[in-house]
Amino acid sequence: MTEDQIRQILNDHREGKLSGDDALNRLRKLPFEDLGFANVDHHRSLRQGFAETIFGSGKSPEQVARIVESMAANQHNILVTRANTEQFHRVRDSVPEAEFNSLARTIVVRKDQTIRGKGSVMVISAGTSDLPVAEEAAVTLGVMGNTTDTLYDVGVAGLHRLLDRRDRMLKARVVIVVAGMEGALPSVVGGLVSAPVIAVPTSVGYGASFGGLAALLGMLNSCASNVTVVNIDNGFGAAMVASLINRV
Amino acid sequence: MTEDQIRQILNDHREGKLSGDDALNRLRKLPFEDLGFANVDHHRSLRQGFAETIFGSGKSPEQVARIVESMAANQHNILVTRANTEQFHRVRDSVPEAEFNSLARTIVVRKDQTIRGKGSVMVISAGTSDLPVAEEAAVTLGVMGNTTDTLYDVGVAGLHRLLDRRDRMLKARVVIVVAGMEGALPSVVGGLVSAPVIAVPTSVGYGASFGGLAALLGMLNSCASNVTVVNIDNGFGAAMVASLINRV
Amino acid sequence: MTEDQIRQILNDHREGKLSGDDALNRLRKLPFEDLGFANVDHHRSLRQGFAETIFGSGKSPEQVARIVESMAANQHNILVTRANTEQFHRVRDSVPEAEFNSLARTIVVRKDQTIRGKGSVMVISAGTSDLPVAEEAAVTLGVMGNTTDTLYDVGVAGLHRLLDRRDRMLKARVVIVVAGMEGALPSVVGGLVSAPVIAVPTSVGYGASFGGLAALLGMLNSCASNVTVVNIDNGFGAAMVASLINRV
Amino acid sequence: MTEDQIRQILNDHREGKLSGDDALNRLRKLPFEDLGFANVDHHRSLRQGFAETIFGSGKSPEQVARIVESMAANQHNILVTRANTEQFHRVRDSVPEAEFNSLARTIVVRKDQTIRGKGSVMVISAGTSDLPVAEEAAVTLGVMGNTTDTLYDVGVAGLHRLLDRRDRMLKARVVIVVAGMEGALPSVVGGLVSAPVIAVPTSVGYGASFGGLAALLGMLNSCASNVTVVNIDNGFGAAMVASLINRV
Amino acid sequence: MTEDQIRQILNDHREGKLSGDDALNRLRKLPFEDLGFANVDHHRSLRQGFAETIFGSGKSPEQVARIVESMAANQHNILVTRANTEQFHRVRDSVPEAEFNSLARTIVVRKDQTIRGKGSVMVISAGTSDLPVAEEAAVTLGVMGNTTDTLYDVGVAGLHRLLDRRDRMLKARVVIVVAGMEGALPSVVGGLVSAPVIAVPTSVGYGASFGGLAALLGMLNSCASNVTVVNIDNGFGAAMVASLINRV
Amino acid sequence: MTEDQIRQILNDHREGKLSGDDALNRLRKLPFEDLGFANVDHHRSLRQGFAETIFGSGKSPEQVARIVESMAANQHNILVTRANTEQFHRVRDSVPEAEFNSLARTIVVRKDQTIRGKGSVMVISAGTSDLPVAEEAAVTLGVMGNTTDTLYDVGVAGLHRLLDRRDRMLKARVVIVVAGMEGALPSVVGGLVSAPVIAVPTSVGYGASFGGLAALLGMLNSCASNVTVVNIDNGFGAAMVASLINRV
Amino acid sequence: MTEDQIRQILNDHREGKLSGDDALNRLRKLPFEDLGFANVDHHRSLRQGFAETIFGSGKSPEQVARIVESMAANQHNILVTRANTEQFHRVRDSVPEAEFNSLARTIVVRKDQTIRGKGSVMVISAGTSDLPVAEEAAVTLGVMGNTTDTLYDVGVAGLHRLLDRRDRMLKARVVIVVAGMEGALPSVVGGLVSAPVIAVPTSVGYGASFGGLAALLGMLNSCASNVTVVNIDNGFGAAMVASLINRV
Amino acid sequence: MTEDQIRQILNDHREGKLSGDDALNRLRKLPFEDLGFANVDHHRSLRQGFAETIFGSGKSPEQVARIVESMAANQHNILVTRANTEQFHRVRDSVPEAEFNSLARTIVVRKDQTIRGKGSVMVISAGTSDLPVAEEAAVTLGVMGNTTDTLYDVGVAGLHRLLDRRDRMLKARVVIVVAGMEGALPSVVGGLVSAPVIAVPTSVGYGASFGGLAALLGMLNSCASNVTVVNIDNGFGAAMVASLINRV
Repeated sequence: MTEDQIRQILNDHREGKLSGDDALNRLRKLPFEDLGFANVDHHRSLRQGFAETIFGSGKSPEQVARIVESMAANQHNILVTRANTEQFHRVRDSVPEAEFNSLARTIVVRKDQTIRGKGSVMVISAGTSDLPVAEEAAVTLGVMGNTTDTLYDVGVAGLHRLLDRRDRMLKARVVIVVAGMEGALPSVVGGLVSAPVIAVPTSVGYGASFGGLAALLGMLNSCASNVTVVNIDNGFGAAMVASLINRV
Repeated sequence: MTEDQIRQILNDHREGKLSGDDALNRLRKLPFEDLGFANVDHHRSLRQGFAETIFGSGKSPEQVARIVESMAANQHNILVTRANTEQFHRVRDSVPEAEFNSLARTIVVRKDQTIRGKGSVMVISAGTSDLPVAEEAAVTLGVMGNTTDTLYDVGVAGLHRLLDRRDRMLKARVVIVVAGMEGALPSVVGGLVSAPVIAVPTSVGYGASFGGLAALLGMLNSCASNVTVVNIDNGFGAAMVASLINRV
Repeated sequence: MTEDQIRQILNDHREGKLSGDDALNRLRKLPFEDLGFANVDHHRSLRQGFAETIFGSGKSPEQVARIVESMAANQHNILVTRANTEQFHRVRDSVPEAEFNSLARTIVVRKDQTIRGKGSVMVISAGTSDLPVAEEAAVTLGVMGNTTDTLYDVGVAGLHRLLDRRDRMLKARVVIVVAGMEGALPSVVGGLVSAPVIAVPTSVGYGASFGGLAALLGMLNSCASNVTVVNIDNGFGAAMVASLINRV
Repeated sequence: MTEDQIRQILNDHREGKLSGDDALNRLRKLPFEDLGFANVDHHRSLRQGFAETIFGSGKSPEQVARIVESMAANQHNILVTRANTEQFHRVRDSVPEAEFNSLARTIVVRKDQTIRGKGSVMVISAGTSDLPVAEEAAVTLGVMGNTTDTLYDVGVAGLHRLLDRRDRMLKARVVIVVAGMEGALPSVVGGLVSAPVIAVPTSVGYGASFGGLAALLGMLNSCASNVTVVNIDNGFGAAMVASLINRV
Repeated sequence: MTEDQIRQILNDHREGKLSGDDALNRLRKLPFEDLGFANVDHHRSLRQGFAETIFGSGKSPEQVARIVESMAANQHNILVTRANTEQFHRVRDSVPEAEFNSLARTIVVRKDQTIRGKGSVMVISAGTSDLPVAEEAAVTLGVMGNTTDTLYDVGVAGLHRLLDRRDRMLKARVVIVVAGMEGALPSVVGGLVSAPVIAVPTSVGYGASFGGLAALLGMLNSCASNVTVVNIDNGFGAAMVASLINRV
Repeated sequence: MTEDQIRQILNDHREGKLSGDDALNRLRKLPFEDLGFANVDHHRSLRQGFAETIFGSGKSPEQVARIVESMAANQHNILVTRANTEQFHRVRDSVPEAEFNSLARTIVVRKDQTIRGKGSVMVISAGTSDLPVAEEAAVTLGVMGNTTDTLYDVGVAGLHRLLDRRDRMLKARVVIVVAGMEGALPSVVGGLVSAPVIAVPTSVGYGASFGGLAALLGMLNSCASNVTVVNIDNGFGAAMVASLINRV
Repeated sequence: MTEDQIRQILNDHREGKLSGDDALNRLRKLPFEDLGFANVDHHRSLRQGFAETIFGSGKSPEQVARIVESMAANQHNILVTRANTEQFHRVRDSVPEAEFNSLARTIVVRKDQTIRGKGSVMVISAGTSDLPVAEEAAVTLGVMGNTTDTLYDVGVAGLHRLLDRRDRMLKARVVIVVAGMEGALPSVVGGLVSAPVIAVPTSVGYGASFGGLAALLGMLNSCASNVTVVNIDNGFGAAMVASLINRV
Repeated sequence: MTEDQIRQILNDHREGKLSGDDALNRLRKLPFEDLGFANVDHHRSLRQGFAETIFGSGKSPEQVARIVESMAANQHNILVTRANTEQFHRVRDSVPEAEFNSLARTIVVRKDQTIRGKGSVMVISAGTSDLPVAEEAAVTLGVMGNTTDTLYDVGVAGLHRLLDRRDRMLKARVVIVVAGMEGALPSVVGGLVSAPVIAVPTSVGYGASFGGLAALLGMLNSCASNVTVVNIDNGFGAAMVASLINRV
């Protein structure tokens, strides 16, 4: 409708209802956004078919439910990350098709099953304790329209499990590697595939893991040149970037 | 030639020269690599048209020159990163077409001008002190066969410089953002484009920048969901990942 | 009354009741404070019309209530920060006009509505999770006698929301910017206004935010030259300094 | 001249030379900056009478000299921070009135002696080793048009030196406190004055001072509520903010 | 009784019951401790009139009570630090004269009222939140036989409260200074007295206090040359060292 | 059975059922593991007589019980570390011979009493709070088939207790030293024995122990040249390495 | 002479030359210091017979020499710490009796040989690399009037060297322990003596010693209750506190 | 000769020359060491055939040469670590058979070629920049009497190089793994062998490697249970422990 406003100003000026100065002033006062500088976030979420996402942590069940309800009118997928059971129960009261993944801590409303990614994204994780983060990535990939393959519990101290699946790895267009403790897995995977690898350190570990710092530093210093890193436990973020790459 | 060895074993067994047990044992003893588990690194560098890369730091001019010479026989591009003038002079003695970029600290031997990337990669940097890292990324992108666009000196405290170039940004298939100090630029750029953003913290700054730690932490905590991060000052690594994404 | 004591000493000496030595000795023994070296804190709070402030954290409801009661006799505003519901209920029993802001975690007794600030102070915050700290600042600003404007949820990854309100920003005499995660917002705002910007890092975030450290370092390294920083989550402190600047 | 462009578009549309759609498109393509979204930095430096500033560190004498020359045409003051003797000699060749302060490491070209600050800014420093940072602040304050008072070598372990000058402190409209080691001085000064205090930690110290970290943390945790903090050794930044406050 | 053993060996050798070699071997096998290398800890606690001390944290009420009972037979004072109410109730069942200080979190059985310190030890603390640590120091000082003076709530931002009591400070033979946040108080006190100052950082604070790290670093970097430091929250340790100094 | 597969391929080729190319291809596709590259982990645990180990932390009683049940069929020892009472009760329902050590937080099913270590391993610990980690090491050593000696509560501030037992120390083939706080004990023990010393820092302490960091750094910087270090609180890991050394 | 000023004011008032108000005002304006609030630093250095001290680091030979000259008039000892050869040569030109200790990096002018300490202070150090700090402490102790005993190169990995000298240790009234690397020596010494122990961490070490951080943390977490700590490499500070304790 | 002293005391007592009390006293005064509490260090170095070791860093060529000369009389091997060319030239003047390894920075005087280790020790390193540390370990192993195998330049991003040599790895009795950057190699090797693995982090890397901290943390958090860790760059220490294990 801003476009209409501009046309109106141009028209009014043309028809002499608006002096040049007044037209200029009214043009200047138009909201910034309306001058063509689009809300990229919005773009990305809605026009490109990405799901709408809510960060559940710290929100009440009521708050989460209300946001989900307001979104449920349109036909996009909806994803709540870092969600808990209480939030899910309250959401399901309003939106019965909502699904909960207790391991990934996600609530998903899936309205759009379109596959938008050009290839497959693989999620690899090191230990069983890394599964919540790996699953958050996998759920996010699914709801964002990607074909996904997962390979869990393949730590670097048991290389054979990893090497046995090298064929599946080589098929992926993007690989997400989730690991805590020493965070070595992305380097090893990075050396086995030529696809971009997105490394997700997890806060899994104790003592000198310092809440994921050890894994984070390990991944940043990876000797493999196809590895980039996201924040500790940020399975969602890794999946978002992987989705973008999978569409380019 | 390993393939030949295997065929030989199969043949010898067929012809009865080798018992089943002996064939089995000889198969087991074949070098791992030869059993089809290729050297991915090698693959990547050579078969995929990537340049061969040498990390110059800590190597003598003689060492660098000898490595470059041995590579110069084939027709791949050659890239020396973290190079200095002494290394360059020594390399040029052997390989006269070598070129030095003193800002990027790179030596390049460019034999292959093929553009392999599907789109353009943009390199954006915040301050003039970030230029060496930004240029390392730009040179690497070039030598790896990408079309490159650069946008330098567009710090977040002067947004208009950035916003004025939003059209160029939107054209990039991948964006590399190089910034020191508070490392805020990738978040801002991440919100303006829908392409994947690779953030490179630099060690530029003083006091509480702690050698790039402030920028690194800022980028890892980016509120934009299309940002991944590489190590401090790792312009080369960012360009490698960008090249991979630009080819998928 | 110290002044009276000094006059008495002078008098006694004049009238010969006190020798020179005795007068000297008695002068020396007067309490330090009484010799004109005023309690600046007291000054600031009471003579300059600032509210009396209580740090609620770690105090029992009974303790908070008793302090508020003892202050309620005079006509200054009273502010309890980091307060909880129990403290509020107990305070309200004694001082019925007390008001609770559960988001800001503040109890306020507002007796003095005088506006003492010369201009307006704006509070800008990045994400919804930063609201408690932003509101603590806003409540403090109000109770200290400032006109306040707030602009919430304008993170750097969605610049248009920020740019749209540039007029309101430019009107502020001082700007407080509250942000967690990468802490980039103060740099961006600092580049858009010429007023002093007080940056408040928040402990909002996870993983490599390290309890607000990432935001704090980001703000200290701001490339905008009008930014100063207070402690993590210190909305109150930012508002105090802003109030001082707003009165100079 | 952008205004002219817009008027032209409006005119052309009015006169029928430009269809509504074409006018709309041309309006959208105007450079962002020209649409009234001014370069605040520029504003601040030039229209508000601030000096133009160059960060000398890492620039060659030639580079610094060329920038100073290009600025010397107009009548603004020019400030080079973190400058060295070589840079100064080269600058003086082109701009003979340039002055060097070797302690502050500043080159100043002073063309405009106007006092723009409404009051006086005081710079207080703890030890003799903090002087370079304190002097950087003092020089900056001068060149930005402030009346300045300095009080050096008044560490908290010798309080009497500080207390003796309380009258001078109380006269300042803004106080900058520069301290290394334990960084306690801003808290003490903050309790003695009611003006805003800008604390500058310095990298002075050894051992557990960790390059100024101890002083920085001390200042951020100040128990005085009128203290804000800038980056370690950032005397320039403190003076910039003080100048802004001194003009409001 | 070891002495008796040695005499016996000497005797047996003298009387020919033991050859030289056998005497030598038996001497070598005597327990190390018995050869005069006393248990210094024991010495200190018991012969020098120090109280016996139990670290209560992590022990069950039953465990604490049993240890106290076993000690209560002799006439030394007994001190339990980091104690809780449950431990106290259980101890009092067995040792009715036990006393609990809930602020200091100490249980004390006082059998020996002898004053062993040569002078007085002063405990100074900065804020009300530092009181548990200050009181732990004060209680320990008392039970170790020292005359004690306390001066609480005298933070560096309100110097007059401190300066007013300078006479009391100057009388102390040793001064313990307890402070959290910026930890500046020991430097200020250190500059006012010539006695040794033992600084105790506390974990009081939030944000960039990092659990007492800011205060600890501040104290280690003190510009006053009569300050030494103990661990964060270690009121007991400071009092032990002060007791030793007070007896030399 | 992989061996059988390879023999089959060889056979088929011999008999002409499989061309050379097909044999080659089928050989390439065999799972990596089956080509003789054994699962070392498995080897270690089972063929070498090590117990099977489960990390109990974060697993439900049901999960732990199911894993133990599935292992209980064979005759290996089973060890659950970081176990709790609930897990034990549930395990005991299925495997009545399971034993719980509440201090070590271990569940053990001991089927194999064979001593496999060639000598004795000693576990030394500094304070009573280090006992859980020391006991985890001792229990692990036992279940892995080692003769074990323990020496607890011998902190460096009471050297005589340590020196008195030097004979027992000298008999050990490997020594594990568990210590929190300053972590000095491994250096002292390292100087007293010539056996390899494995140092285990514990998270015991408060304030500047920073969760075991102080002890960890102390041990890494040990001036004794026979000391290596494992992660904070990793009694299990120390015992595993000690078991390996004890068998070489 | 301030006393005279006060007497004059009293007199003038008595004689009617000064009204009560004027006397009051003039009393208030007297310099703070003159009102009896002495310069403690000065006191300590000069009246108590302590040497005057100059921190040489960062000062030019000329600056050091001028300060020493100006002090050399009176009869106090003079100590320059962190001094270098150039500074010494320049000082000796003016003050021929100056002596240089190149290991301790001290210049000393010894005019006063009085022993003021009541007992002996012992300096113990761990390794040969700790000697500069240990010697700085020893030289300072001497110039401050203490009897000193030194025991060098007695690291905790060779306990016998330490234990052999236990008699000398037990004679000391205060013990300074200097150690780098793991910083364990103060704990061991603290358990062997009942005197107060002042621990000085040194920056000796590499890798995870992090410039003395490991030793510092170790000492702060000492399990011996008679240990306090000063800054890394602060031999001077330890000696100052030891001198104070040795005089009480 | 101490033994003689004791015999003498026993004799004198037997012969009545010494009373029981006097004998007791004289026994007590004997030097600690002489009472059988041997200098373990000495033992280890000399009786067990270990080389005598000198830490060259920070010592002058003259100092190193003098120490080497004094040792060269006996027939032990001598090892100088962290040595430089100057030290070597000076040593060779006195001890012509001394050899210098410029990569390992070691000077070796090899007099004893005895192999004392029971098996072979393997040294594996990740990158070419890790070679100095790996070589320090290898040289130390040799001079301490071990058979050594080395496997260099086998980073985890090129697994095939590592996997190809698995046979050699499996033959080692102890494995030392040297790696910088992410420090992942020990985990991978640990999973491939059942021997104890000693991990040596190196300071190789840049940016977020923080001088080896990333590698150190990675190794401490290794998911392989046969890995222990030594200090950053401590190739010597790893070799010492490996030598001990190789002899048990």
